[in-house]
Amino acid sequence: MQKVPFITKSKVEEIVKEYPTPFHIYDEKGIRENAKAVKEAFSWNPGFREYFAVKATPNPYLMQILAEYGCGADCSSMTELMLSKAIGLSGEQIMFSSNDTPAEEYTYANEMGAIINLDDITHIDFCEEACGGKLPETMSCRYNPGGVFRMSNGIMDNPGDSKYGMTPEQMVQAYKILMDKGVKHFGIHAFLASNTVTNEYYPVLAGQLFELAVKLKEETGADIRFINLSGGVGIPYRPEEEPNDIYVIGKGVKEAYEKILTLAGMGDVAIYTEMGRFMMGPYGGLVTKAIHEKHIHKEYVGVDACAVNLMRPAMYGAYHHITVLGKEDASCDHQYDVAGSLCENNDKFAIDRMLPEIEMGDYLFIHDTGAHGFSMGYNYNGKLRSAEILLKEDGSAELIRRAETPKDYFATFDGLNVYGKLDI
Amino acid sequence: MQKVPFITKSKVEEIVKEYPTPFHIYDEKGIRENAKAVKEAFSWNPGFREYFAVKATPNPYLMQILAEYGCGADCSSMTELMLSKAIGLSGEQIMFSSNDTPAEEYTYANEMGAIINLDDITHIDFCEEACGGKLPETMSCRYNPGGVFRMSNGIMDNPGDSKYGMTPEQMVQAYKILMDKGVKHFGIHAFLASNTVTNEYYPVLAGQLFELAVKLKEETGADIRFINLSGGVGIPYRPEEEPNDIYVIGKGVKEAYEKILTLAGMGDVAIYTEMGRFMMGPYGGLVTKAIHEKHIHKEYVGVDACAVNLMRPAMYGAYHHITVLGKEDASCDHQYDVAGSLCENNDKFAIDRMLPEIEMGDYLFIHDTGAHGFSMGYNYNGKLRSAEILLKEDGSAELIRRAETPKDYFATFDGLNVYGKLDI
Repeated sequence: MQKVPFITKSKVEEIVKEYPTPFHIYDEKGIRENAKAVKEAFSWNPGFREYFAVKATPNPYLMQILAEYGCGADCSSMTELMLSKAIGLSGEQIMFSSNDTPAEEYTYANEMGAIINLDDITHIDFCEEACGGKLPETMSCRYNPGGVFRMSNGIMDNPGDSKYGMTPEQMVQAYKILMDKGVKHFGIHAFLASNTVTNEYYPVLAGQLFELAVKLKEETGADIRFINLSGGVGIPYRPEEEPNDIYVIGKGVKEAYEKILTLAGMGDVAIYTEMGRFMMGPYGGLVTKAIHEKHIHKEYVGVDACAVNLMRPAMYGAYHHITVLGKEDASCDHQYDVAGSLCENNDKFAIDRMLPEIEMGDYLFIHDTGAHGFSMGYNYNGKLRSAEILLKEDGSAELIRRAETPKDYFATFDGLNVYGKLDI
Repeated sequence: MQKVPFITKSKVEEIVKEYPTPFHIYDEKGIRENAKAVKEAFSWNPGFREYFAVKATPNPYLMQILAEYGCGADCSSMTELMLSKAIGLSGEQIMFSSNDTPAEEYTYANEMGAIINLDDITHIDFCEEACGGKLPETMSCRYNPGGVFRMSNGIMDNPGDSKYGMTPEQMVQAYKILMDKGVKHFGIHAFLASNTVTNEYYPVLAGQLFELAVKLKEETGADIRFINLSGGVGIPYRPEEEPNDIYVIGKGVKEAYEKILTLAGMGDVAIYTEMGRFMMGPYGGLVTKAIHEKHIHKEYVGVDACAVNLMRPAMYGAYHHITVLGKEDASCDHQYDVAGSLCENNDKFAIDRMLPEIEMGDYLFIHDTGAHGFSMGYNYNGKLRSAEILLKEDGSAELIRRAETPKDYFATFDGLNVYGKLDI
């Protein structure tokens, strides 16, 4: 499928008058349409809720748009809880799914009434103490079946090597302990594979968790209120990949639900999801300007963004599609490495990529940076993180996070005697 | 060689009363002894200067210690130049070695009188314009021989795939153009291999650059004032590795120097280095506390640091040695994955590592984080970066960077309407 940017060259030329490149831009229209589709795809389940994985894109303006479609927030840390609070989320609208959790984060999550998803059986006592000796009435436990997780199309992942969750035996034991401690309502959570580009993942996972739910109910008598399929629903970073169809996914989960849960008399269980990438990934792009060309042992184009703005290519060797704005229909007859300015040779957005001829000043649109893009940014080489801009449905551009300045970069010297000597 | 932390458990217990874990701690004594050794090892060369690679550890307090031993700063960005200025460095004490450089950084570097090291031949005009139409009198060009760089012990790297520098032909051409434009004094710079744990790297590289210098002088008549061996001198992250001996390295460079440069009548050329890892790596450690233990399909210890504090294991699969403080002499008879709290399964400081039995509350010392440790930190999952502490020669601890707070994390929302709603 051809990957088409949601923004034109002329719109970028307008935006850069106020906000210079590089910046991440988000497509309000796309976010809304997708959020609506997710809601519809699971509308067969009255209790359904998507908890947006804040870690993917920790921006309150984007979270707020999703909240209009009933989305809550999946938080993994204190600051993510704070963001959720700032946009008015509370109670069951927040899932606190973390691991290796500091005590103060359990305390804060509990004070907000968030649903706490325990990563480990040892966290029961730890969390109880952090919650002032009294656990909340509703709690969730994270499951790790171990071994290898396979789907028919060959996609697999290795939960047995993953640090998350509880073993099957521990799930039973944890429920019993929690019931003894007065917990009344329960949830199950599992994350078994990342960025799956197949409609099969959620239904297969759901089937496993529904069976586990039936078993847990039989063995412990626990009141199971929800099953959290977590994240893992991916997006097609490459043009040749077939995108997931959320309606097909929703239908697949429904079939498993009816076959297992409804049959077992558990037809009132709510389905929760914690998608990040699927909710936001395709609706963000990194806009950057070509500022250098280099002809040495290979051909390079240097842009004004770098791994600081988007780390996935450097960290995972991840593919991100690139469109040269204004040259959408030009022939891709030039081979480039598209490089950023870090003193790291892995700071390349593309290697041996066929693109139209790039001229200095051209704007490049790096696709699918809406999730795990800005949020994975660092300040290596003393580089500053970019602004985030929302392209609104009416075509206007709203600044939803300003770019960093040297003053931000040096903030943690504030109070020390060097601070006054900095030229900021 | 046994790796021994430069700090004891009792000292950590004292420090945490004021500064909670996790934090990076630096060993003033070790930094000074090593800086002195570097200076001595190259004292045969009157013009020698080490330019500390600021990107490794961008902390002005540490840079200041090195400056006492004559070290300058190797900067790759605006903020690194600002740090250098803040500690009083200027002119030839600063090397500006960047790539894909924004114009304003050339302008700033030039205003400081820093030596500009051009990464590419196309940067000549670009830099000239950024410097107001007049290039500085002294300039350097970065060299990339292409192909594969090999040493006798099998260590190799692939400059041909690296984005840096100019080809041999371009070096000649660049010198001629620069001379035409009025540049009077020249330097050569090359970085061919990273973290080499062998005394051979600098001498081999130096030999190549010295021969290039002779050739460049012959072909262009340029006044070559310095040769910059850049970085690449590594440290032994693993106990079984033999550390580099800087005296042997200095002697090896001297031999090449005499054989090639002195013989060619170029015995007045200065040797520059841009070491980061070698200057600081072993003299920093990450101190973190064990806060969770987990017994599932594997055995885990969860600590209060994560990849936000040290990314090298997650990004490169890098080995960092771990000592459980107070158990330095205990038998390593337990196998653990030592994990941080990120929702990323690569957030593990160690996998299948044999360590003494770890109890909750134990302090772990993660070795060799003095370079590319704190500086590669990010804020993924909304986690905050730690403090940096200097363990002074007199045994006292000085805060040389405070830990981030949620307010720092949210700083780029300042000025936007969400800011007032944040619970900070």
